[in-house]
Amino acid sequence: MNYQSIISEIHRQILQHDNEGEVASYIPELDQVDSEQFGVSLLTIDGESCQVGDSQQAFSIQSIVKVLILTMAYQKLGGQLWRRVGVEPSGTPFNSLGTLEYDGGIPRNPFSNAGALVVSDVLLDLYEDPRQALLDLMRAVSGDDTLCFNTSLAQSEKAAGFRNIALVNYLKSLGNINNAVDDVLDLYFDCCSVMVNCEQLARMFLFFANHGRSLDQNLQVLNTSQTKRINAIMLTCGFYDEAGDFAYQVGLPGKSGVGGGIVAVLPNAFSLAVWSPRLNQKGNSFRGLRFLEKFTTITGQSIF
Amino acid sequence: MNYQSIISEIHRQILQHDNEGEVASYIPELDQVDSEQFGVSLLTIDGESCQVGDSQQAFSIQSIVKVLILTMAYQKLGGQLWRRVGVEPSGTPFNSLGTLEYDGGIPRNPFSNAGALVVSDVLLDLYEDPRQALLDLMRAVSGDDTLCFNTSLAQSEKAAGFRNIALVNYLKSLGNINNAVDDVLDLYFDCCSVMVNCEQLARMFLFFANHGRSLDQNLQVLNTSQTKRINAIMLTCGFYDEAGDFAYQVGLPGKSGVGGGIVAVLPNAFSLAVWSPRLNQKGNSFRGLRFLEKFTTITGQSIF
Amino acid sequence: MNYQSIISEIHRQILQHDNEGEVASYIPELDQVDSEQFGVSLLTIDGESCQVGDSQQAFSIQSIVKVLILTMAYQKLGGQLWRRVGVEPSGTPFNSLGTLEYDGGIPRNPFSNAGALVVSDVLLDLYEDPRQALLDLMRAVSGDDTLCFNTSLAQSEKAAGFRNIALVNYLKSLGNINNAVDDVLDLYFDCCSVMVNCEQLARMFLFFANHGRSLDQNLQVLNTSQTKRINAIMLTCGFYDEAGDFAYQVGLPGKSGVGGGIVAVLPNAFSLAVWSPRLNQKGNSFRGLRFLEKFTTITGQSIF
Amino acid sequence: MNYQSIISEIHRQILQHDNEGEVASYIPELDQVDSEQFGVSLLTIDGESCQVGDSQQAFSIQSIVKVLILTMAYQKLGGQLWRRVGVEPSGTPFNSLGTLEYDGGIPRNPFSNAGALVVSDVLLDLYEDPRQALLDLMRAVSGDDTLCFNTSLAQSEKAAGFRNIALVNYLKSLGNINNAVDDVLDLYFDCCSVMVNCEQLARMFLFFANHGRSLDQNLQVLNTSQTKRINAIMLTCGFYDEAGDFAYQVGLPGKSGVGGGIVAVLPNAFSLAVWSPRLNQKGNSFRGLRFLEKFTTITGQSIF
Repeated sequence: MNYQSIISEIHRQILQHDNEGEVASYIPELDQVDSEQFGVSLLTIDGESCQVGDSQQAFSIQSIVKVLILTMAYQKLGGQLWRRVGVEPSGTPFNSLGTLEYDGGIPRNPFSNAGALVVSDVLLDLYEDPRQALLDLMRAVSGDDTLCFNTSLAQSEKAAGFRNIALVNYLKSLGNINNAVDDVLDLYFDCCSVMVNCEQLARMFLFFANHGRSLDQNLQVLNTSQTKRINAIMLTCGFYDEAGDFAYQVGLPGKSGVGGGIVAVLPNAFSLAVWSPRLNQKGNSFRGLRFLEKFTTITGQSIF
Repeated sequence: MNYQSIISEIHRQILQHDNEGEVASYIPELDQVDSEQFGVSLLTIDGESCQVGDSQQAFSIQSIVKVLILTMAYQKLGGQLWRRVGVEPSGTPFNSLGTLEYDGGIPRNPFSNAGALVVSDVLLDLYEDPRQALLDLMRAVSGDDTLCFNTSLAQSEKAAGFRNIALVNYLKSLGNINNAVDDVLDLYFDCCSVMVNCEQLARMFLFFANHGRSLDQNLQVLNTSQTKRINAIMLTCGFYDEAGDFAYQVGLPGKSGVGGGIVAVLPNAFSLAVWSPRLNQKGNSFRGLRFLEKFTTITGQSIF
Repeated sequence: MNYQSIISEIHRQILQHDNEGEVASYIPELDQVDSEQFGVSLLTIDGESCQVGDSQQAFSIQSIVKVLILTMAYQKLGGQLWRRVGVEPSGTPFNSLGTLEYDGGIPRNPFSNAGALVVSDVLLDLYEDPRQALLDLMRAVSGDDTLCFNTSLAQSEKAAGFRNIALVNYLKSLGNINNAVDDVLDLYFDCCSVMVNCEQLARMFLFFANHGRSLDQNLQVLNTSQTKRINAIMLTCGFYDEAGDFAYQVGLPGKSGVGGGIVAVLPNAFSLAVWSPRLNQKGNSFRGLRFLEKFTTITGQSIF
Repeated sequence: MNYQSIISEIHRQILQHDNEGEVASYIPELDQVDSEQFGVSLLTIDGESCQVGDSQQAFSIQSIVKVLILTMAYQKLGGQLWRRVGVEPSGTPFNSLGTLEYDGGIPRNPFSNAGALVVSDVLLDLYEDPRQALLDLMRAVSGDDTLCFNTSLAQSEKAAGFRNIALVNYLKSLGNINNAVDDVLDLYFDCCSVMVNCEQLARMFLFFANHGRSLDQNLQVLNTSQTKRINAIMLTCGFYDEAGDFAYQVGLPGKSGVGGGIVAVLPNAFSLAVWSPRLNQKGNSFRGLRFLEKFTTITGQSIF
């Protein structure tokens, strides 16, 4: 399949239609991004690389990083991790506190903000220097040593992060945070601040399409069974209360971020990153979703 | 891959362990089933057929039929169907009324009881004789003309079906039922009463693994894109509030029924039906789940 | 205090302002009522009787009857009744199903529809002829033998009563209904159908202001402690999710009905019935609420 | 009525029965209190004063102060205050976050923790020195200039107050906190830390029984209508999800605190404070509730 011509054509078609949605505006670093940017990168497990549009433009990884910190926790804890966080879709928005009390402080899944805060707390217990460990993982699987945190972005997030501060304190009151709440928040916001471009993002997630093995350093990050399980969580929980619709429209495991990035994988085939800053009402990139739906419909390639 | 020896071996291993869970007991027809029965049937799109255990023993299809009535409604209405029912996992048990009011009478997905009642109501509007149309579809895709309703079972269900009666009246009060509530209930309970065995069930669902085309009569039930979408809904919503866990453990689109049956498909490969009457706390077959998890772990075959 | 001149003056003032809200329209019997009617009746425990406006015009008692059927159940069961229904305000609308599942089928209070359906079920167990027993009570405390059911109204209610049918089936599925659901519904709708006018209603509730003793036949319906308790439930739960606001604005125990009636009592002093069919968004009479607020503010008479 | 002999007799009876419940243990200052202490103070609007047991022993006022800070906000804002907080019982525990999102950040009532945090935020806007203003009010209405904050207690509360920190950040994220979250929390915890004994507490609340006028300095704190309204909120919301039961059992407006104090008033008659540290499962003093129920049942004195 000629992926380059397909993604170029879909990219061209989407640019011809009105862009919709709103750029995240709760901090200046996100609000001031040029909302019309639109990049795509596709990498196959055979080493093919296709780029179109603003695929080299850096943006903040945001919630996409939740998959990587989950990977780090799951590598070390395995199934014991699920004592602290579930694997069920929540049926509620990403930042909801609603079901936590009913669930005894166990977040429904690791891709809600509550779940990712618990995972961050777990990392503080498991790793001596979890920030460095995250950078090490990202750099290893992407083969790119320039990846780093955006400290000023992380500080802006924290200054505006009342909802996340509420969540972590609520989790602490329910007994599911071991470390100091400020340490958990600082780590979480740092993780979300990493700047990436589409190509880096696609490269970073390629091991999820390749039975857990990265191409760049031939690193076995997860085994086949573990990879299946993280992919499954991406599919059922990766898009908050739009997860079912994403599975229905696109049919690929993936994860979105409020920075406008989305990354999706087809096991045994490819990793595909799209980025465009305007978000729909569920908080997912408007053009990103549209691109992915067209791509899987035209190519007939999905996990279903 | 030698499927027959694999399923025989897993079947043998599971029989060596204690059976757990409880048989559904709310009506005599279910309560009196021999709880230790355990059958498996696997059919590939290449025509291979593997059987083990009680694969020829009939049981009631129950909620598994929700996928077929959804197919019938979706064939005729396409995306318009989603005005009446959503495609999102609910995060709640199968018979919950909790989120309906908040959602304005639109069930979260067609595999909750509320959603299947709405789909039944849709069938009453779309088909002159929806019961015959369902039998026609089942018989055509399975190549088995003996399939029929179990009228006495349906009557028992209705006599004990206070929760479903509550649901359909609630939906009616919220404006999402067009027909008389008794007509909707009668159709729904009839559909759930069809008696099937594992082989029939696997054959019936093979078109979901084959881009929408049945093997027996080479019938194109759904096109590729439609098939992808129904498979996606099976994956995200097929196991109620255990859907995430099923995706995580098994990694196949599927659907369970309170009769103890589960059917799952791997697109481009096979359809796999298992049946054992004891149910776990979420209402899914204990041995069925265990079998499927072992199967995908051992074979490494899943959508992820 | 010259009650007659006070209620006449407030009645006059309210007529000068626009009437707001909507008449209940879910059945023709309610929808076709002249929406501008407005009657008031005040009776003191000293025998004083004051009337103004349409105080002799009959309307359906509706939910106000919940206080009387609760009285009948409480007379016979005492505190044992609270195993079946609570005494807490629900924080939700009158016909909500939302909290029932969480509460294990025990309605929060007897003045929600769910609670009144449970009380109706209790009456079927306690009384050989609960309809006659209700009429006997109403006639005894009001001294009016003409009170009777409006059978055609009850039938209309049942034909449109999907929400209540849902509730009673839901309660049955949760194990808190002993009798056949149709018997419970029939009794409930019959009870709600009794036709009363303001004067009859005020007379009927006077024993709540008089330590449980009726004036007309000097009947001790409840003792002092029991009367205190029913009055307390009226105050905390009598106006659904507007109960707090009614206590705040008016400060009297009372109960409203969808027919536009409201009755309130000041212990040791008076019973006061108002009726006007237009309802606010919470389902309580717009002019009725306005009258009662003005009355307690002008007279300074409330329980607080 | 000989109040002294009545309260002495009830106090004696209760001491003969087992004490139940648990002392609040989340901070050392509460955990280390002698759990068997039990004091009562009753003051009439005619100046009669009755004491029994540990009525001169100081304890922290805790949530009872919510009534006084509400009074301070309501004095200045009147009905405008209800734009920020409601007057409806919530049907949920005192520290619940559950309904806030659904309600758009408007706490159901000012006696939930969320509501009291909003009121604290209001005080920061209304008063130059809200701490001094609270002490001034307390001292004026009680005639006792020794009342003051317990700073170390307030600091312990804040160090353990994850739930309240969650609440105020959540409210901030929903747009219903104007000031810095730390300033709101500091004020709130300071207010809750004031040390009082039963007699001081009864004296402090006597104006709620006296049409808003204090006895000690003849100060008109609230007018008659305003007093009615605060009393109404105490009745419907003063005991969290036990408010309905308190109205049912006791029948007086009142407010409890986690320190084991309860104060209740009978308009036109008396103010009554009880204190005993062991709390029932709803967080209200076990002996305090028992005392109040016996008192109103024996005397027949309640608002109903």
